[in-house]
Amino acid sequence: MADSEETKVAANAPETTSEVPAEGSEKGPSKNELKKRAKEAEKAKKAAEKAAKQKELEAQKAAADEDYAAANYGKEPLNQSQSRPRRERVQIKSLNPNLDGQTVLLRARVQTSRAQGNKMVFLNLRQRTDSVQALLIVTPEKVSKQMVKWTAGIQDESIVLVEGIVKKSPEIIKSATVGDVELLISKIYLVSGLDGRLPFSVEDANRPETEISSNEEVQYKRVLLDTRLDNRIIDLRTQTNQAVFTLQHAIGHLFRSFLDSKGFIEIHSPKLQGAATESGASVFKVNYFKGNAFLAQSPQLAKQMAIAADFERVYEIGPVFRAENSNTHRHMTEFIGLDLEMAIEEHYHEVMELLDDLFKHMFRGLREQYKNEIDVVGKAFPAEEFKWRDGPEGTLRLTFREAVDILVEDGVPREALEDIDTENEKRLGRLVKAKYDTDYFIIDKFPMGLRPFYTMPDPEDPTLSNSYDFFMRGEEILSGAQRIHDPALLVEKMKEKGIDPASMDSYVNAFRMGCPPHGGGGIGLERVLMLFLKLNNIRRASLFPRDPKRLEP
Amino acid sequence: MADSEETKVAANAPETTSEVPAEGSEKGPSKNELKKRAKEAEKAKKAAEKAAKQKELEAQKAAADEDYAAANYGKEPLNQSQSRPRRERVQIKSLNPNLDGQTVLLRARVQTSRAQGNKMVFLNLRQRTDSVQALLIVTPEKVSKQMVKWTAGIQDESIVLVEGIVKKSPEIIKSATVGDVELLISKIYLVSGLDGRLPFSVEDANRPETEISSNEEVQYKRVLLDTRLDNRIIDLRTQTNQAVFTLQHAIGHLFRSFLDSKGFIEIHSPKLQGAATESGASVFKVNYFKGNAFLAQSPQLAKQMAIAADFERVYEIGPVFRAENSNTHRHMTEFIGLDLEMAIEEHYHEVMELLDDLFKHMFRGLREQYKNEIDVVGKAFPAEEFKWRDGPEGTLRLTFREAVDILVEDGVPREALEDIDTENEKRLGRLVKAKYDTDYFIIDKFPMGLRPFYTMPDPEDPTLSNSYDFFMRGEEILSGAQRIHDPALLVEKMKEKGIDPASMDSYVNAFRMGCPPHGGGGIGLERVLMLFLKLNNIRRASLFPRDPKRLEP
Repeated sequence: MADSEETKVAANAPETTSEVPAEGSEKGPSKNELKKRAKEAEKAKKAAEKAAKQKELEAQKAAADEDYAAANYGKEPLNQSQSRPRRERVQIKSLNPNLDGQTVLLRARVQTSRAQGNKMVFLNLRQRTDSVQALLIVTPEKVSKQMVKWTAGIQDESIVLVEGIVKKSPEIIKSATVGDVELLISKIYLVSGLDGRLPFSVEDANRPETEISSNEEVQYKRVLLDTRLDNRIIDLRTQTNQAVFTLQHAIGHLFRSFLDSKGFIEIHSPKLQGAATESGASVFKVNYFKGNAFLAQSPQLAKQMAIAADFERVYEIGPVFRAENSNTHRHMTEFIGLDLEMAIEEHYHEVMELLDDLFKHMFRGLREQYKNEIDVVGKAFPAEEFKWRDGPEGTLRLTFREAVDILVEDGVPREALEDIDTENEKRLGRLVKAKYDTDYFIIDKFPMGLRPFYTMPDPEDPTLSNSYDFFMRGEEILSGAQRIHDPALLVEKMKEKGIDPASMDSYVNAFRMGCPPHGGGGIGLERVLMLFLKLNNIRRASLFPRDPKRLEP
Repeated sequence: MADSEETKVAANAPETTSEVPAEGSEKGPSKNELKKRAKEAEKAKKAAEKAAKQKELEAQKAAADEDYAAANYGKEPLNQSQSRPRRERVQIKSLNPNLDGQTVLLRARVQTSRAQGNKMVFLNLRQRTDSVQALLIVTPEKVSKQMVKWTAGIQDESIVLVEGIVKKSPEIIKSATVGDVELLISKIYLVSGLDGRLPFSVEDANRPETEISSNEEVQYKRVLLDTRLDNRIIDLRTQTNQAVFTLQHAIGHLFRSFLDSKGFIEIHSPKLQGAATESGASVFKVNYFKGNAFLAQSPQLAKQMAIAADFERVYEIGPVFRAENSNTHRHMTEFIGLDLEMAIEEHYHEVMELLDDLFKHMFRGLREQYKNEIDVVGKAFPAEEFKWRDGPEGTLRLTFREAVDILVEDGVPREALEDIDTENEKRLGRLVKAKYDTDYFIIDKFPMGLRPFYTMPDPEDPTLSNSYDFFMRGEEILSGAQRIHDPALLVEKMKEKGIDPASMDSYVNAFRMGCPPHGGGGIGLERVLMLFLKLNNIRRASLFPRDPKRLEP
């Protein structure tokens, strides 16, 4: 390698390339500045003496060991941006047999290492969802025994900078995602090591449950959810989680790209509210200077107010807060709402159908553009592929009454079905799947009594409402409706639900100044992610989940 | 119009098209249900009687007046999605002289109306940033005197559904944005009226300050900022604000599209934190079940933890909360942070340069794709066009020391420049503009003492740091740096700043398990918007601004 010496200098001896920046000013430094400088000079002197001593010792040791590879490995000094050699670094996923024989440079985690005698080490190097096998073999003048020993001692999960030659593998290496090549290491430096023991290995955390239970010869460690969440930084490094959060990103991206194409604009509404709104019970109180504020339970009120302010079509992606002491697989105290609201021209099915098109756009986008990530997650969380009706027959739509009838026909007493609880929702999901072969459907026309005060009643049957829920794998993922845009009717419905209209003045006033008919819906981002991938617990779909018992990390 | 009768039926007599949904179930309804139905039947009967009486009265009155146009105007019943005729409605901005003679249907606000005698009314109809003049003239068998009178009585800001014929205007109508056509109204219905008086007219609110002060003949009303914010729903309807928030959307969109193309993924970090972090002073406390939580002052810690978790390149768009009792033109207690963080390979200038490219992408995108909106805002807030260096010479970069020198040269005492305060920032902005003809520049290499504990010190001069601020029109809009990824150095710096490392355990632990060198920055969305457009007060760039004194609307 022509530039090996340069790299070495850049990596290990930054001081030699440094220059004291020229004083740009004509005036002298201040007294304080002079004092500071004297102190620093003293410090620097001591440090230099120490470094010199250290160097001498190292030199003596090196001479004794005759380590001809000393420049090819070792701990890098802390990167403080000492230099910028601008050497290209590659991604593991770009490696392939066509690069056979080429020298590449890359930064990666050491997922595992295994020494074979004192002349060879195998490393599994990882970047996000990709891994490759690397090999270090004692070679005269290039790789010394000391270098192999040092490399074998690198702790798992350390970050290394590796220079190596790409070699076509004689056979596919199953333990790596890029299995048709391996890397013959020529240089290896430690960029960031560990300070302490790993709570669990990323390999253990990434192992599918099926592999743990099916293999009787080896007893694998099982990493429980709470342990994972307590050590979320390590847990997030698994290939599974790297894929999960790429898919979370994808859902947000698909949500926005669809709505942008339909003339929506993104808004940002305040999370700090002057009054406890919607349903006072489940709202967090904030100390706000000498008074109080409350955290928004949803952007519901704000997005409706944006419609009254002529925004026509709006969406918001942001945190929503629920002070519910629910410790279930599907509740969190903070989650991301994908919300939208739009003026309607004639009928609320305009919104419902747009939402349906939005979901199909998201499902299609995930399947077509993120197949690799879905497959990676599928290894850890095996699930039947998510199914929806994408043909001309359209998405299955049931009225609430029809949904109840399906359950009654299956043996659920009608009396138990004034509302459909979580258990019956799941049961309905199974019945629908069996009958219609779809994991995705809509229930329309919910009873007015089950919906919030701002829901528009049905024009013919005032016990029903112009509202709908969307379901994935038998769980609700969207709730929406036409809203009441008439202030008199709104005030009437607030009173019916025991809400004092005066307590929500700015909201009600928005409709007093004229507001178009409108409707919308709110989607739980983590729920869509959990149900699409069948992760079984919403916490797995949140970067740093929050529930009544968890505020860390 | 062939379908006029149909429309009328759909709009005014929905009952006739209704059908009671068939009972899908074989079992009978419950007792409660029966009671409910009886009640409703009674109600319906009374309503029907009332309606019949009303109809009769109307019929008598109509006969007396011989109103041949009775079907062509009036208040629509409340839209509860009674029907869905699927008639196309058009946008004002799509109207043009090529449509001369065509009949169109549209929903719009009445911005102003002006009767001329009792035979003619002029309306200014508005949709978001667009407006058109509409005209109603008494015409035998089509438009009656009663219809003109009713239309003349429509309150400003009411929402109407209008059917009319597009007419090429003989001369450009200056009071409308679409001035080359007008609309000859054939039908007009009230979709949503007002319940009360407007606090100010949208026309007054939209009038530029320059027009108010330059016109001596007419005394226009000036609408002050506080009045606007108190009645934000009306204020947001101005063409200026419709454009401002389209541009807010645009900035977010350009931010994301650039970063998506650079391999970033979007994350969502929790706003509820277990401990008061970063700087304990300015954090809001939340009652969290039986304990406390705190609102995140930024996603700083979480995004760094995502880097330690191998996400490599992340961004977040979300609210940040600052409990600072600052009542200035540029502080809010809640604003939207555009944050990013990325692993660096060699040098923190990799991040700084990516951020610079990001800003230039945003500036270019705004100028090229949103010229119309920028011009609309420019009418109310006249400003020199925002300038940046887009050529091969690149963005102006100064070191902190160089920036100080420029100020000293201009007469500011050096002793006053250990930090550069807001006043001097603006002064520097003016000096830079005069010398380099740019509104956008970067200051690099801030003194370590001015930056947060997690900032990486300069490798050569420990009093300096690897940190930068970006400026627009002399105000800071981004702050960023290389971060400390070494836990020992991090703990040392925390202690120096008087922070107990134990209080930020999960953060420090993230680095103990190995973390790549990294850096990033945080941008205030509203600040970028305010400074690009020169809105002069950050509240104008926020949908519903929050400050120490404002939590409503």
